[in-house]
Amino acid sequence: MKKHNYSAGPCILPQEVFEKSAAAILDFNHSGLSILEISHRSKDFVAVMDEARALVLELLGLEGKGYQALFMHGGASLEFLMVPCNLMKQDGKAAYLDTGTWANNAIKEAKFFGETVVAASSKEANYSFIPKDFSIPADADYFHCTSNNTIFGTQMKSFPETNVPLVCDMSSDIFSRTIDFSKFDLIYAGAQKNMGPAGATLAVVKEAILGKTGRSIPSMLDYQKHIAAESMYNTPAVFPVYASLLTLQWLKSLGGISAIEKINEQKAALLYTEIDRNPLFKGTANIEDRSNMNATFLLNDEAHAPLFDELWKKAGISGIPGHRSVGGYRASMYNALPLESVQVLVDVMKELETKI
Amino acid sequence: MKKHNYSAGPCILPQEVFEKSAAAILDFNHSGLSILEISHRSKDFVAVMDEARALVLELLGLEGKGYQALFMHGGASLEFLMVPCNLMKQDGKAAYLDTGTWANNAIKEAKFFGETVVAASSKEANYSFIPKDFSIPADADYFHCTSNNTIFGTQMKSFPETNVPLVCDMSSDIFSRTIDFSKFDLIYAGAQKNMGPAGATLAVVKEAILGKTGRSIPSMLDYQKHIAAESMYNTPAVFPVYASLLTLQWLKSLGGISAIEKINEQKAALLYTEIDRNPLFKGTANIEDRSNMNATFLLNDEAHAPLFDELWKKAGISGIPGHRSVGGYRASMYNALPLESVQVLVDVMKELETKI
Repeated sequence: MKKHNYSAGPCILPQEVFEKSAAAILDFNHSGLSILEISHRSKDFVAVMDEARALVLELLGLEGKGYQALFMHGGASLEFLMVPCNLMKQDGKAAYLDTGTWANNAIKEAKFFGETVVAASSKEANYSFIPKDFSIPADADYFHCTSNNTIFGTQMKSFPETNVPLVCDMSSDIFSRTIDFSKFDLIYAGAQKNMGPAGATLAVVKEAILGKTGRSIPSMLDYQKHIAAESMYNTPAVFPVYASLLTLQWLKSLGGISAIEKINEQKAALLYTEIDRNPLFKGTANIEDRSNMNATFLLNDEAHAPLFDELWKKAGISGIPGHRSVGGYRASMYNALPLESVQVLVDVMKELETKI
Repeated sequence: MKKHNYSAGPCILPQEVFEKSAAAILDFNHSGLSILEISHRSKDFVAVMDEARALVLELLGLEGKGYQALFMHGGASLEFLMVPCNLMKQDGKAAYLDTGTWANNAIKEAKFFGETVVAASSKEANYSFIPKDFSIPADADYFHCTSNNTIFGTQMKSFPETNVPLVCDMSSDIFSRTIDFSKFDLIYAGAQKNMGPAGATLAVVKEAILGKTGRSIPSMLDYQKHIAAESMYNTPAVFPVYASLLTLQWLKSLGGISAIEKINEQKAALLYTEIDRNPLFKGTANIEDRSNMNATFLLNDEAHAPLFDELWKKAGISGIPGHRSVGGYRASMYNALPLESVQVLVDVMKELETKI
């Protein structure tokens, strides 16, 4: 039976990525060798890395604009540390927008390096909205925000105009919607939502902002070292990078970000319309801040949970129980989730209504 | 044609690991989902992580001895930073044995944290031997060594007796030979030699040595945080960890480290015997320090290189050109390389002799 995978991440990837990457494990590029046993310095893998880095910039519209795309280790959690280490000056300060668990974790790491100003927070409202009226200190070394909050189902629909360098954790919505990415000085993302499997981490950095802290930076935390080594400072996560390339190629073949954005909007509209229409459910996030990636919703009456859970399981749906911080349900609709899967969930929600 | 993969890492893994991991990409555990799209918090993946961690301790003979096995991000290069960050006290010092490029890189990162004493170095001899007569300062917070030097083809055959915590980078020979692993307080290794594909990193740490530096440690660098989170502090590299588990299961089914050690000794004896016998070749490493994992050797006359290169390529051998620091050839004979592949190389060396 076909599965409808709503996992919040790692998450569904295109079927052709599964097929091509499985084939490459048995024989990569007709070399007689597995992608798992080739040297990262081999011509074939250097070509994979180069193409993946170039394709990131192409898809984001950042070619020739002074950016470098890096495939790194450590996930967004290591970037939480790298960002202040590379950007906060000695005795400097940074400003952060606190929109959820991950933003909060990023703030914790910044405090190791200097004054960390929280420009605004929606913590008091269990992060159910995106703060909008706030000011960014003009003397901040950078401003950091989280474009999409996987756990709380909120998404920034616009980004502040500011003269300080703009840093964004786009782990859970990069490559899902058109944004003027050139507004940002540093974008990073764990691969495991819209870019590939867990184990690769993307950083897209404007070179001009680096090297200004006056701090010596340990090698593995230093973006400049990774840039100089063309993303091969140490052995990269070969297979996750390769599967990420396949995912980026799939996105390009669909028509790029603007094409997938239309589908993502259709999926989100379909589900949110049902959440708002169906008297059994309610959304948890402020309507104007709702995420097109992660829809968080509750049953109005918890007593209906056993029947609802039975119905969606029977329909082949997986991965929709909500995060413990919010409860209820979370339907993650990343790029590779087909519209058809959202229809299946909506049908189950309607079916529940007829049975109660 | 069958390939004989002598790559120094990433490197050959058992054929059954390729087959099982490719199958899991198409359907993991008959779940209808790919290993690439499941949540790291799913029951099935938590079981993978738990089994992998337990199997590491079992294979190393460290069960019930106060150790924790962690699967982490970042490769040995990030461990170079984590080790001093977790073990060097404020105003403390550490002692390092400098046996090659990687040892040297580890030393560089230690210097960020405090006094870093090089107990001995073979740098002057292009790292062709392992220094033996040296003393470790009794007040060092730890002593760090590299058990096997991939680039230079040397391997420590014994380890110093010392009262200070003993830390070892075993990236290129862990799981290849029996050692009393309980002599070590911290062992780490990038996966991509004997444990699995690139993208997973193993740390095996004696819990009692942690938490003594007086330093606040950033989250991703803190072994205690990773232990508390049972190696899931952030999203692990799901596929590389899974493929590592398959490789560890293969090793256990063969009879564990003592069984593979016998085969590794046969392979090394076969190749070194030919290097020493064949008048066309010479080894580069001090004989008593020769690595059973990486045999480095040169042609006595470089003029024979084109013919030798033609012969080994024709025989299906790949990955034996030497590292630029040493030149010549490097045959890496990790656990998964069959004895048969070494015989093919030895036959080619003999064939060269008959043709000259």
